[in-house]
Amino acid sequence: MSGRFITLEGGEGCGKSTQAKLLAAYLQTKGIETILSKEPGGTPEGLILRQLLVTGDKDKFDAVTECLLYYADRRHHLTKVVWPAMADNKWVISDRYADSTEAYQYYGYNKRIDFATLKNMYQIVAGDFKPDLTLILDMAPEVGMQRSFAKAAGMENKELRFESRQMEFHNNLRQGFLEIAKREPERCVVVNADTDIETLHAKIVQIVNERLGI
Amino acid sequence: MSGRFITLEGGEGCGKSTQAKLLAAYLQTKGIETILSKEPGGTPEGLILRQLLVTGDKDKFDAVTECLLYYADRRHHLTKVVWPAMADNKWVISDRYADSTEAYQYYGYNKRIDFATLKNMYQIVAGDFKPDLTLILDMAPEVGMQRSFAKAAGMENKELRFESRQMEFHNNLRQGFLEIAKREPERCVVVNADTDIETLHAKIVQIVNERLGI
Repeated sequence: MSGRFITLEGGEGCGKSTQAKLLAAYLQTKGIETILSKEPGGTPEGLILRQLLVTGDKDKFDAVTECLLYYADRRHHLTKVVWPAMADNKWVISDRYADSTEAYQYYGYNKRIDFATLKNMYQIVAGDFKPDLTLILDMAPEVGMQRSFAKAAGMENKELRFESRQMEFHNNLRQGFLEIAKREPERCVVVNADTDIETLHAKIVQIVNERLGI
Repeated sequence: MSGRFITLEGGEGCGKSTQAKLLAAYLQTKGIETILSKEPGGTPEGLILRQLLVTGDKDKFDAVTECLLYYADRRHHLTKVVWPAMADNKWVISDRYADSTEAYQYYGYNKRIDFATLKNMYQIVAGDFKPDLTLILDMAPEVGMQRSFAKAAGMENKELRFESRQMEFHNNLRQGFLEIAKREPERCVVVNADTDIETLHAKIVQIVNERLGI
């Protein structure tokens, strides 16, 4: 596969979606055919799974069920969107990928799922495949939460499942993402996201250039 | 857990649902609190997964995605229905369980998924837990298919995803169930299902009595 796979990760309200859009638009101007996608819900069937995962009673699934659903969505996204696009020389930018599952389910929820079980699921779904670059948008949870609630106030279909968790959850989550970045420095870059949209975008473009060459 | 878990398995049109109902009613008359359930779709969330799995383009998911969805449904069913009921001394009868996933995905589709991957998923979802008794309702696929199509003719929301497969699929499926029964004789009993409803019910009651004692 000669395309590239870039993932954006981070807690609630850190600006992933906005930055993913800006990066995709930038790559297009550079003549790189780019697909902007997301998890969960990067496919029509995945949107149904997303709905099931992020709305309603937030404790309706146990950790294993919830992770299996995220991984089913991931497999479908990889086989129907990411891998075909990459085989076609396109670049794919995904708003969240496997690091989110690990950061939320393992770190955020204080190890409510076994680490080996999560890795086992990843192996089943993706084998040795990994993103070429993962941008971890980092900021103090308090700032992200404010942004997230402000944004949701104007939305009809609120997805605030994680926002309603205790601040401890969000601190664990942030530490989780930083942990992952420390473990895989060749793949992950931590970016300070507590800044304005344009500055963050410029920083991201610089990193993508350094890491992947545009 | 002191309740019992009985699963009914078999190809399309073999009479599983009818026999599951009759067995549940029979156990109730014997004073055994019994829950009649099914997979996929033994929970409200599972019904959404069932809809996703059995309607629409039957090739929309690859084997791994499809099995992950079946196993997510299974985990949710076990944690929300089967295990709590058993802990409460109830018996649970399920119209299909893991043998169906194996028979359809591995045997029916001619090994389109790795056997070890399927067993790995089972381990993640259920660990060492197994049904106390599995009744495999066996009949020639031609007979079952006729029954299944006749039944569907009167239904609004047809679930004929598997019925439309080639006869080779259904022959492989039948052999798959028989294979499973041969491998686990302490758990599985094969019953000839090409007979009338009452005769089959009487036979099933006899087996349940012999194996589990009512």
